[in-house]
Amino acid sequence: MEEKAFRRLLEDKTAEAEVIIKSFLPEETGYQRTVIEALNYSILAGGKRLRPILMKETCKMFGGDERFIEPFMAAIEMIHTYSLVHDDLPAMDNDEYRRGRETTWKLYGDGMGVLAGDALLNYAFETAFEAFKLADCEEDYRRISWALAFMARKAGIYGMIGGQTADVEAEKMNETLTTERLLFIHEHKTAALIQASMAAGAILAGASKAQVDDICRCAYNIGVAFQIQDDILDVTGDSMEMGKAVGSDESNNKQTYVTVNGLDNSYRAVEKMSEEAVRILDSFDMENEFLRELILMLVHRRR
Amino acid sequence: MEEKAFRRLLEDKTAEAEVIIKSFLPEETGYQRTVIEALNYSILAGGKRLRPILMKETCKMFGGDERFIEPFMAAIEMIHTYSLVHDDLPAMDNDEYRRGRETTWKLYGDGMGVLAGDALLNYAFETAFEAFKLADCEEDYRRISWALAFMARKAGIYGMIGGQTADVEAEKMNETLTTERLLFIHEHKTAALIQASMAAGAILAGASKAQVDDICRCAYNIGVAFQIQDDILDVTGDSMEMGKAVGSDESNNKQTYVTVNGLDNSYRAVEKMSEEAVRILDSFDMENEFLRELILMLVHRRR
Repeated sequence: MEEKAFRRLLEDKTAEAEVIIKSFLPEETGYQRTVIEALNYSILAGGKRLRPILMKETCKMFGGDERFIEPFMAAIEMIHTYSLVHDDLPAMDNDEYRRGRETTWKLYGDGMGVLAGDALLNYAFETAFEAFKLADCEEDYRRISWALAFMARKAGIYGMIGGQTADVEAEKMNETLTTERLLFIHEHKTAALIQASMAAGAILAGASKAQVDDICRCAYNIGVAFQIQDDILDVTGDSMEMGKAVGSDESNNKQTYVTVNGLDNSYRAVEKMSEEAVRILDSFDMENEFLRELILMLVHRRR
Repeated sequence: MEEKAFRRLLEDKTAEAEVIIKSFLPEETGYQRTVIEALNYSILAGGKRLRPILMKETCKMFGGDERFIEPFMAAIEMIHTYSLVHDDLPAMDNDEYRRGRETTWKLYGDGMGVLAGDALLNYAFETAFEAFKLADCEEDYRRISWALAFMARKAGIYGMIGGQTADVEAEKMNETLTTERLLFIHEHKTAALIQASMAAGAILAGASKAQVDDICRCAYNIGVAFQIQDDILDVTGDSMEMGKAVGSDESNNKQTYVTVNGLDNSYRAVEKMSEEAVRILDSFDMENEFLRELILMLVHRRR
């Protein structure tokens, strides 16, 4: 696919995801209006909507009729957003700005920052449950409930929250981190929601257990490679899309895959994982050109 | 029912709920061990387990076979617990002790307090989804997904979080609160999870839409009466079970139903709502002696 054509497609799909997400947002009314405003402010801060796009494209690859996908697309973005809202809190990273705007707690106060994050996580599940209203046979229920359970697990202590915890603890450690621990953090903090996105898309399309396992390994490689590439770009510059300053890990004394394993090994790891992700994707032998390009863009940030 | 017999039954049912809740708790292992320890510490802090008990008793009253009830009992207690963990945070009420023990953030740090609350809310849904594994027909799926959607709504911006928000905002207001706003806060902050508990029990037992609506009105009356009684006890003393000091609302300058409407009107409101709750319960014409006693105990705190 030509770069220009890919860029245009990606823009269209981002705009489409934006419309879908907005269609599920709550109305700003009632005595609880402030928390709803804070919720909407948080999720409408922009963002590339990569998780919903990955979900829908995976669903399409498996020939899904996409009936159930829209509430799940909104839900995964809400989960991603709540994690940013709580990460930014004074009790966590204490960040006052994100994507050039004030963070939620900075604008609404830190109590409301806690509540807005809670509201987003809870509302993510409320939104995904909307899919049940479209179910009209046992197989529909089976798929929706499987996708829900998968998504919830990858968001919780065995997924994103687990990775967050290991990361917070690693920052307090004096000894050099093991590669095993670094990979645990990258897998859980970053890859888990990519896995949730792609696997939910596959499950809702009717993929088999074996296919979902494969998609999960594909998403693992994408997520971890993405994160190691992040560590590389922090050292080498070129961090146009990352939203953080070059060298910020170093100035924070943060241990990363690069500081622990060196730049050469990091390049090799990204290359190997990127190849593995594409190999798995191609093994399905289904039309997936846009998804393939998207994965390569995500991992290498070349485009 | 004699008081002694009721007391003994309540103790048995509390112990039974405790065993059920414990059976769903995660193992303390892995790089994310700290957040799991904090999660378990929070939920094992004691507590009367009233919501799971109300859920199970309502399910029994409707003749439910109780197959699906156990994961939901654990889930509602996790939701209740996460709300306490986040309420106690420095960003919210800044409480260092609860039930005679250090609060979660005080023991594990405020970052981990945020994460442990998030983990509990997410794990509540993971736990409730366990019920799907026991589903073996479309009707089973229909009941479980209805109960889930109901519970989630009553926990979120249209339920507990909505009430929390209105409460936080009310504390910053200078003018006298309207009775409408006070009732909104009590309904959402307190009654919503009682409604979730009782309605989920009814739904899982196969109750009709009309019956669930009735149970909801019953639970509304219980929850709001409970909260007004709380306001009364804060003024009159006798707050043995409340876990807060007598007169604490007054010393906080907190506006309550009593400060706004006076003690006599408050007594009358509790009496009226308590009668209404019992009237609805009795209208079902089903065996419910223990549940009836439990409701009266909850509202009047006489026992």
